Amino acid sequence: MPSYRAPIEDVTFLLQDVVGFDRHGNLPGFGDLGPETLEAILREGAKLVEEVAQPLNRIGDEAGCTRAPDGSVSTPPGFRDAYRAYAAGGWIGLSAPEDYGGQGLPYTLTAVMNEFMSGANVAFGMYPGLTMGAVAALMQHGSQQQKDLYLPPMIEGRWTGTMNLTEPHCGTDLGMIRTKAVPRGDGSYAISGTKIFISAGEHDLSENIVHLVLARIEGAPAGTKGISLFVVPKFIPDADGRPGPRNGVACGSLEHKMGIHGNATCVMNYDGAVGWLVGEENRGLAAMFVMMNEARLAVGIQGLGLSEVAYQNAAAYARDRIQGRALTGPKAKDKPADPIIVHPDVRRTLLTIRAINEAGRALVLWTALQSDVAHRSPDPAVRQAADDALGLMTPVVKGVLTDLGFDNTVRAQQMLGGHGYIAEWGMEQFVRDARIAMIYEGANGIQALDLVGRKLPKDGGRAITAYLTETAAFLKDAAGDERLRPLATPVLAALGQLQQATVWFMQNALAKPDNAGAGATDYMHLMGLVALGTMWVRIAQAAHGRIAAGRDTAVMEAKLVTARFFVERWLPEAGARLACITAGSDAVMALPEAMF
Amino acid sequence: MPSYRAPIEDVTFLLQDVVGFDRHGNLPGFGDLGPETLEAILREGAKLVEEVAQPLNRIGDEAGCTRAPDGSVSTPPGFRDAYRAYAAGGWIGLSAPEDYGGQGLPYTLTAVMNEFMSGANVAFGMYPGLTMGAVAALMQHGSQQQKDLYLPPMIEGRWTGTMNLTEPHCGTDLGMIRTKAVPRGDGSYAISGTKIFISAGEHDLSENIVHLVLARIEGAPAGTKGISLFVVPKFIPDADGRPGPRNGVACGSLEHKMGIHGNATCVMNYDGAVGWLVGEENRGLAAMFVMMNEARLAVGIQGLGLSEVAYQNAAAYARDRIQGRALTGPKAKDKPADPIIVHPDVRRTLLTIRAINEAGRALVLWTALQSDVAHRSPDPAVRQAADDALGLMTPVVKGVLTDLGFDNTVRAQQMLGGHGYIAEWGMEQFVRDARIAMIYEGANGIQALDLVGRKLPKDGGRAITAYLTETAAFLKDAAGDERLRPLATPVLAALGQLQQATVWFMQNALAKPDNAGAGATDYMHLMGLVALGTMWVRIAQAAHGRIAAGRDTAVMEAKLVTARFFVERWLPEAGARLACITAGSDAVMALPEAMF
Repeated sequence: MPSYRAPIEDVTFLLQDVVGFDRHGNLPGFGDLGPETLEAILREGAKLVEEVAQPLNRIGDEAGCTRAPDGSVSTPPGFRDAYRAYAAGGWIGLSAPEDYGGQGLPYTLTAVMNEFMSGANVAFGMYPGLTMGAVAALMQHGSQQQKDLYLPPMIEGRWTGTMNLTEPHCGTDLGMIRTKAVPRGDGSYAISGTKIFISAGEHDLSENIVHLVLARIEGAPAGTKGISLFVVPKFIPDADGRPGPRNGVACGSLEHKMGIHGNATCVMNYDGAVGWLVGEENRGLAAMFVMMNEARLAVGIQGLGLSEVAYQNAAAYARDRIQGRALTGPKAKDKPADPIIVHPDVRRTLLTIRAINEAGRALVLWTALQSDVAHRSPDPAVRQAADDALGLMTPVVKGVLTDLGFDNTVRAQQMLGGHGYIAEWGMEQFVRDARIAMIYEGANGIQALDLVGRKLPKDGGRAITAYLTETAAFLKDAAGDERLRPLATPVLAALGQLQQATVWFMQNALAKPDNAGAGATDYMHLMGLVALGTMWVRIAQAAHGRIAAGRDTAVMEAKLVTARFFVERWLPEAGARLACITAGSDAVMALPEAMF
Repeated sequence: MPSYRAPIEDVTFLLQDVVGFDRHGNLPGFGDLGPETLEAILREGAKLVEEVAQPLNRIGDEAGCTRAPDGSVSTPPGFRDAYRAYAAGGWIGLSAPEDYGGQGLPYTLTAVMNEFMSGANVAFGMYPGLTMGAVAALMQHGSQQQKDLYLPPMIEGRWTGTMNLTEPHCGTDLGMIRTKAVPRGDGSYAISGTKIFISAGEHDLSENIVHLVLARIEGAPAGTKGISLFVVPKFIPDADGRPGPRNGVACGSLEHKMGIHGNATCVMNYDGAVGWLVGEENRGLAAMFVMMNEARLAVGIQGLGLSEVAYQNAAAYARDRIQGRALTGPKAKDKPADPIIVHPDVRRTLLTIRAINEAGRALVLWTALQSDVAHRSPDPAVRQAADDALGLMTPVVKGVLTDLGFDNTVRAQQMLGGHGYIAEWGMEQFVRDARIAMIYEGANGIQALDLVGRKLPKDGGRAITAYLTETAAFLKDAAGDERLRPLATPVLAALGQLQQATVWFMQNALAKPDNAGAGATDYMHLMGLVALGTMWVRIAQAAHGRIAAGRDTAVMEAKLVTARFFVERWLPEAGARLACITAGSDAVMALPEAMF
């Protein structure tokens, strides 16, 4: 049975020494968070995920969710109690405004808890996760009345939330949505249509479910400009927020999925369900996209969390399992064989995972902090710069950390040989659970297009220009420190390759957009290598600081080794990515459709 | 529901125009195989896998195998009839000697059928596949009496075979085997112990099961030099081959696995079961390893087969699914959206898969032919050269085609978005089924060590030297043809990188074997890139030939595009692999075990 330990020490090190969390004490919600308070919160959260959520991970996979003939859905055994404990701890509203019952703490802490929960039980974590997404959308676009009605019970956990976008014939291309909204004359609408792949669409954890639904108001313009957002509660609340009559929305079936069995993925049938417009008519997509940054970060974090738990269990197995002898002669002479961790290929594999996890965690925290600054700083220029960085890095965190996170679960599984393939050891569940993160909240190819097609050219390239400039300045500075030079110099070279790729797009993709499309995924991964490499230089800088101060020396020495490993074994990929990008789209576009 | 079409045309093209199958008409079994006969056999095999095996793939996954309290195991519905049809067609003994009821045809044809079967229903194909492995071991090491007794019913399909190596505490390190063999005084042995992960260990397809079991004779030397091979039939046959009393071997349980649910993966308990020595005492591992080449090729071919069927279904979906518009403006103006195959990132993904499949198929056929030549040529020097090439390329085919085959099933799944994640579309089964191929028959890290630690230095480096020399000569020659130059030149450069890596090992790994261990996986993949790249140059050469002759022009033009794509988009990885290899083992070995 796999285990999970929340990486609290690494998080506090990264927050304090690497991403400069404590430099933001002036922001609302940050003020009271001294190191002790911060650590106390993290320990409380860690305890919850380790002791409550993680033990349900296996049963969640095995039992899954079940739908009764009446359309009601039961979650796996134990999920109800765990959900109650999660809600009672105030974790759903950790970063939600205090006005609505939240704790008003930084989103960065929510990001940390998301990682912990994803490592412990990603399918369970999706229930409160989707609620947080719906809360964010209502906060931003709901009327005052909607906020007053829906937010307190959602933040409290009595009600949960969902996002209803996908239909059988459309996922990426939401302009084709067919779900209809017909005015009922009293300001509400009758919503009819079928939504698929609705996570947490129906379940037994909460007394009400608040569906946010994209639909087309009768007579609205065709395409994306005719889509509106509606709130459709499962039980229609009265003005005091008491759930009343059952609305015309029901779970038609559950999908049989590769993984995340503990989460109910529903086909939702809307049959004249009563809904209320959220925000403006025909501006539903814009409303949804605002909440996408955090939702996409949350999915990237799932990749990280699963990569971390897979690593922990693979490393434990590699220390424990004896098999064969070291190439350099027996190490455990008292045993019939050495632990497999003596083998270079096993260590290489573990370090490959770890080099992504530790820098990935730093990148997540750095990006989450940008979100906090973008939303909370009093200085508009600071807010804008942070929002630029957030927008630029969100598709990278989502696309790269889920691609690599999935690959890492596969690598970790491989360390157990045949034992990795059977359910008993739990490693294959991590692989199956991690797979979805590359798909939902915008498949990773869409993330790459968002980065290259939208985020790069936005505001005349302001975000990427700032990122390249600031990162180059940091790396050049770091290269001046001889302890950091062996790391900073190759990362600077990779940054140069990213710059070349950016310029190549500017020169070759304007007239021929297929050149951007054909290189988008490689560009996203090249940017990921640069971003992770930069984090390794920052981590190494901080590690030298702690070593000089005699703090956590062994752990910090391990950071330096892993940083070196990243530069030696991951960074060479940057050149290959650049070569793929500059190959352009000719070969890609040459074949007629019928020849595929 | 996914479909599968056996790639007959591609196989015949590759056999005839690329790997020179018809140049071996002098070898036994090749003589009668004109193009028509060959194609007739392939069509017959394709019909069987498409019409009989493929329709059972989904039910095999869903229903799986079940074990009754008495230890008997039922295969999924339909498997019994399908197995009978497969056996009746003579496919089990396709390449087995005619003396024992086989057809004596080239192993290369068996390799082709293995690919077809793996694309159609890999879990089903394992039953006859394991029988073929056991037949090969008995052919090579069994006594005349054993061959006469066991081979005819196995080749006929009335009996099936298994390989029993792994025990709970040992897989890779077979020197730790504990299963005991005690002489019974009549030339037979009493076998006792537990074997795990035994594919097809118990089932209802055949009237008898012939277990080949590694065990330690009482008093044998410790380690790998004390392991012997035994044949242990489920029912002990009389001298006339009639299955008699039940032997003391039983299936204790079935493993719950990530995939290949249609195959029964058994814990086998041997409780004083009667067994007979195969080959010499204490030479069991050597006997097993002889049959490993073909078994490992067969697993590599599973990776290819699954990659192919995943490609076919992803391409069909991409042509069919409409979503969004082309970056260059609408293509299907009569529809609300364009098919997603207009998108460069979709095409890039499909070509990424295809560039491996088509060259991988050529590499498999080339390697299988080496096996035929090594076993059948009258000329000892020719046999030796072929055996060198076979030994060298086997870990590459196994390790690289299963790593990339798995990655390709993941890529293909991604093309379907959320639909790829749910069982209904069948794509996620390909991923789960493909995953095991990276693990069994020697995990891929072991393949890499076999290549670098055993195959490279063997006979003073004779095999790798010959490969590098002959490949360089071919590529230089090809680079002289201006139509092939854009392909041959970069592949030649990658070959140079492979040569550099080889020299680096010679200079750095003798004194420090960890340098070989730390670079082994990258070396294996670098060699895979060179081998696949070389196949693309050969394919392009043949394609130009057909185009000049006006044959299959559209298909051959597609080959040229895909060859270009391989060089542009896959080959850049070679430089990154070389950089990883020459980084050496210092960072890899630096951390103390406890810090992982």
